[in-house]
This record gives sequence, structure tokens and C-alpha cells, in this order.
Amino acid sequence: MTPELRDFYRARRVLITGGMGFIGSNLARLLAEAGADILVVDSLNPEYGGNRFNLDGLVPPVRINVADVRDDTAVAAVVRDRDTIFNLAGQVSHIDSMRDPQTDLDINCRAQLSILEACRRHNPSVRVVYAGTRQVYGRPDRLPVDEQHLVRPTDINGVNKAAGEYYHLLYNNVFGVRASSLRLTNVYGPRQLIKHNRQGFIGWFIRLAIEGREIQVYGDGSQLRDFVYVDDAADAFLRAGAIDACDGEVFNVGGDQPISHRELVSLLVEIAGSGTVRFVEWPPEKQRIDIGSFYSDSTKFRAATRWQPSVSLREGLRRTVAFYRQHMEHYVDAPLPAAGVLQ
Amino acid sequence: MTPELRDFYRARRVLITGGMGFIGSNLARLLAEAGADILVVDSLNPEYGGNRFNLDGLVPPVRINVADVRDDTAVAAVVRDRDTIFNLAGQVSHIDSMRDPQTDLDINCRAQLSILEACRRHNPSVRVVYAGTRQVYGRPDRLPVDEQHLVRPTDINGVNKAAGEYYHLLYNNVFGVRASSLRLTNVYGPRQLIKHNRQGFIGWFIRLAIEGREIQVYGDGSQLRDFVYVDDAADAFLRAGAIDACDGEVFNVGGDQPISHRELVSLLVEIAGSGTVRFVEWPPEKQRIDIGSFYSDSTKFRAATRWQPSVSLREGLRRTVAFYRQHMEHYVDAPLPAAGVLQ
Repeated sequence: MTPELRDFYRARRVLITGGMGFIGSNLARLLAEAGADILVVDSLNPEYGGNRFNLDGLVPPVRINVADVRDDTAVAAVVRDRDTIFNLAGQVSHIDSMRDPQTDLDINCRAQLSILEACRRHNPSVRVVYAGTRQVYGRPDRLPVDEQHLVRPTDINGVNKAAGEYYHLLYNNVFGVRASSLRLTNVYGPRQLIKHNRQGFIGWFIRLAIEGREIQVYGDGSQLRDFVYVDDAADAFLRAGAIDACDGEVFNVGGDQPISHRELVSLLVEIAGSGTVRFVEWPPEKQRIDIGSFYSDSTKFRAATRWQPSVSLREGLRRTVAFYRQHMEHYVDAPLPAAGVLQ
Repeated sequence: MTPELRDFYRARRVLITGGMGFIGSNLARLLAEAGADILVVDSLNPEYGGNRFNLDGLVPPVRINVADVRDDTAVAAVVRDRDTIFNLAGQVSHIDSMRDPQTDLDINCRAQLSILEACRRHNPSVRVVYAGTRQVYGRPDRLPVDEQHLVRPTDINGVNKAAGEYYHLLYNNVFGVRASSLRLTNVYGPRQLIKHNRQGFIGWFIRLAIEGREIQVYGDGSQLRDFVYVDDAADAFLRAGAIDACDGEVFNVGGDQPISHRELVSLLVEIAGSGTVRFVEWPPEKQRIDIGSFYSDSTKFRAATRWQPSVSLREGLRRTVAFYRQHMEHYVDAPLPAAGVLQ
């Protein structure tokens, strides 16, 4: 963290929704180092990413409020005295959103409106940074994808996250509740949910590698993705929360350079020293919402905030594997079954 | 209606959601002429556009089912045996959406998901044509606006209508429920709600002119809009519902040429032979969600369907004024107050 950011957040009253989740908890750790006054709200829904261990070892002034962002009353209470809200609570599984669209809608649209309405009514001078997603772009027309690319989501989660983002911009423009959105690409690192495989493939691959299992890659593994280490993603939130020029804007926050699934898995197996890879046919359910290659152009965000990723993929994977090797019992309920579909 | 469309819709089992509303009822009348088997569902919410008189004189086989599209059970029942769904039910007031975002979300997002889920589960071979809106574009970057323009809505209704549209495309692409969206510009004509002024200005202006009142135009009236007469809009729905190439697509459906508010009101007062115009300051609540000049490029839809507007603005206004002069009592609960804010 830069000295300027450290100064900015010292004693600042911050709310992190989804703050016991993957990015939220890593962000809380950075903010705690800076001496911020941190309030975390998280549902601890057992299917989602919130995990008490993610904030393990953090001492007050970190306060934890277990509540679902669908609880309007709780939301109104927690936003009241905050200077900055990092709004990361969400349903993040593409697959779950296709099976249960209404729950995704409740969390990613209805609750987002409640949060923003609570800000408008009770704390209009707050600043909100929203965790958007590159998923709103769907299958890209061109690569890399910048913010001028059409929003054309290919799954329910993408639609609802797009609406959630639009609400934030609208409350910024119409009601003066300052807000921005970071469209994150694939974020990885310690404290990600790895107990099931419905929240993105990277955490799941890391788990399989550590457990010495077979990693199944769909198709020939040639599709490209970009990756951001979670500390770099958290740093992006800190910057967006501190820089006036970010208000009212959407920004891509992506990795330095794309890598194919094939190369990614090869690197992961090398770093872990365990796991194997097998190329398999696409499952129809997943192929229908696959978007092919994707990587994003973060020029706009870099220019606005001087952000740049500082952790290479190799180093990030090394740290992540080491973290889970040490703390696996906090992230996995039970050993994987000996056989069956693992991916 | 072309002979081909008439043949296509003869005895076809059609559902019109919002079918007692403005566009829905005019569409029902065209379909009745073609001999379609018509089921109309409408909430008849007194604040919205549904009006029993809109279907006055239509005889069976038009069936009317009063139900709110938020009623999942009713929705599941009415979609079952239909060949084509014209999905026009919606909350359409920009202003209401800003005052009560959650109701707008319920109708324009949650209920749309329910309709599509019901199709997916009970009637996957149906075809759906969704009433989209040019409002999803927000304040345009360039004119005329084509479908490559970014979606960037400036009010809650625009966000939720965008999400509703994305759901339709998604169900087309992922689940094979054929669907398209028509992004309508300003539609006007007989059977529009004119009892209050929260559902667009054109119907309200027509009422004021007929009643010999003062029409207030915000600013200098130089902002441009394009207009579509309701029979032309209904014809666009008929075409999209009959042409395979429309499935999975969004289309602008706009007027032949733009006209300024100033010229529009002048034309309206001339045609009505009554009413006056006054230019007033923008009310802040409306200016915050105004989008400046807007007119759309419908080239894509014209190319796909050979649609073109057939009723000029002058002729359309003439018909509309004549309609309301004859039937005003069915569209207005009470006379306007003698004084007060009329716009």
C-alpha cells in the first residue's frame, strides 16, 4: 500500500459488504494494516464465500456484523456512519444463477438497490466502490476488451451484476451517492472458496493440484484468460475508494497478460508439485455459458489511479498453494469423494 | 397488415401480457382482425395503462385473464399452450421507478424472469417478443442511435428494462426459448394512459391540447425525439413474432424522422385546434434523468423485417386527437384541477 493510501484510510470508517469473503477479507486485512475503522457485514451463507477464518487474527477495530444484504433493516443500520463502502456482497456463481435465477436477482439486484437506497436516505455523502465483473461483457467481439465494449451478459449472474452496476452509476449521477464499479477479471489467491466448484475454476484447480488430483480442462485448453492476484484486486478497491476521479465510472481491472487454461494448469501443477491434467469434452451446461477467450484492457483504470498488478501469476500461485497447504482444514468441509465428477 | 402476416397469425395461439394496455390492446385488435386465438393477461393496476375499454367491442376468441405478471402461478398457467407471447407487461414510468425502485424491479425484472422460467419449464417451443425501450441507451453519445451504442440507462426503469431484455436474449441463447426485443422509441396513439403525466409526455400533451390547456415545454423545446404511431409499433411486434431471423436479436424501432418538442407541440396545437404552449424551466427531478436529444436508427429492424412506419406524425396525431375527443370519459377519471402543476 502506498503511503498516501495508508494516510487516507487511517481511522476512516469503512464498511465491507461480503467482508468475510474472498476479496473482502483480503481487503479488510489491508485496511486493518492502515488503521481503518472497519465494519464487516457478511451473511456467512454456507454455500457462499464468507468464512470466519478469513478474518482470523484480526483484532478490533474490526467489527463483524453477521447479516444478509437482503435484510433491509440491517443494511440501513450498517451504512449510517460510514465514510466508504466496499460493496462486495454478492452471489457469484454463474452456475447457481442459472439454476436459481430469483435468488441471484434478490442478492445482486434487490439487495444492491436496498444498499444504495439506504445510502441515499441515511448517508448520502458516503462513497461506494462496487465489485463489478468482466462477465457483463459476455462473449467478446474483440480482444482485449475495454469499457467501450457492449454489455451483453451470457448468464443470469452477468445480467444481474450488470443491473447492480448500473444502479450504482445511477445513484452517483442522479442522487449524488458517489459510486464506481470495478469490473474484475479472474481473481485468485488465499481465502477463496474452494469447497465446491461453482465459484470459478481457479480456486478449484488449486485445490485439486494440492490434493494431487486430476484437473480436468474443457476442450483443448486454448482459451485465454487474465488473472489478478487478490492483493492487487484489493489495492484496486483502495484506490477507487480514495480517488475522486473514479466516481461515476466503470473500470476494467484485469491481469498483466493473458494465459491459456492449458498453460495455467501446467504452471500450477509445476508450482504445487502435485496434480495431473486431463483434457475432456465440454459439459453442455457449461459450454452454453462459456465465453471463449477473454482478457481485459485496464488502461482506463491504470491511467486514473496509477494502479498496476504487483504480483506475478507464478508468485501468486506459489503464495496461494502455500496458504491452502497450511490452512486447508478451514476451507474444506470433508475430503473429496474417491470417485465421481470433480469438476 | 400484410397477407403473409394475416395468414401467419390466423388461429395462432397468442398471449399478450399487458394486453389491456396501450400497445398491447392495439396489437390485440390487429391480431383479432387476423383471426388469432388471443389470450390477454393484464393486472388492471389502476396506476398503470391497462384499461378495459381498450378492448371494448372485441368479441371472443379474445379471452381476458386479469392477473399480475408478478403472480408466478398465474403466469405459469397462461403461458402453457401459447405459440407466441407478446410480452408488454411492465412498469413504464421513469418517475415512478425513481420513487419506488423495488416495485419497478419486481415487475420489470423478477416477473420477467418468472415468465421466461415458465416458458422454459412448460412451453419451451414458444416464441417471445419483448417490449424493450430506447431508454436503455440513456443519454446518447451520437445520433441517430443504433444497436451498437452502449447500454447506459439513466433511471431505474431503464436499468430494469435492460435487465429484462438481457434475460430474454439469455433464455434464447441458453435455453432455446426463442426471444427478441424491440427497443421502442416514443410510441403514441389511441388507448394510451392519459389520466396522469407519469407515463411519458406525448399522451399528456395530447390531453392538454384537447382540453384547451397550457402545455408546458421544458427549456427551449429544442431537444429532438422520434415518434412511432401505435399501429406501426404493433406491426413491428407482429413481424418480430413471425420472422425467424429476429430470434435472439435486439432491434431499435423508431420513427421516420426526429422532431423537436417545440415543433411537436406546435403541430399538436394546430391539429387539435386548441391548447397553448409555454416554455418553462426544467424541474430538477426531471432534468436529472433527461437524456437530451434522442432519435434512433431502425435500419437493422427494417432490413430484417421490411417494417416501415406507415402513419405520418400529422396523420397519427389527427387520429389520436379524434379518438380521445370521442372517448375521453374512458381515459380520465376526473377533470383536471383548475390550477396547480399540470405537467
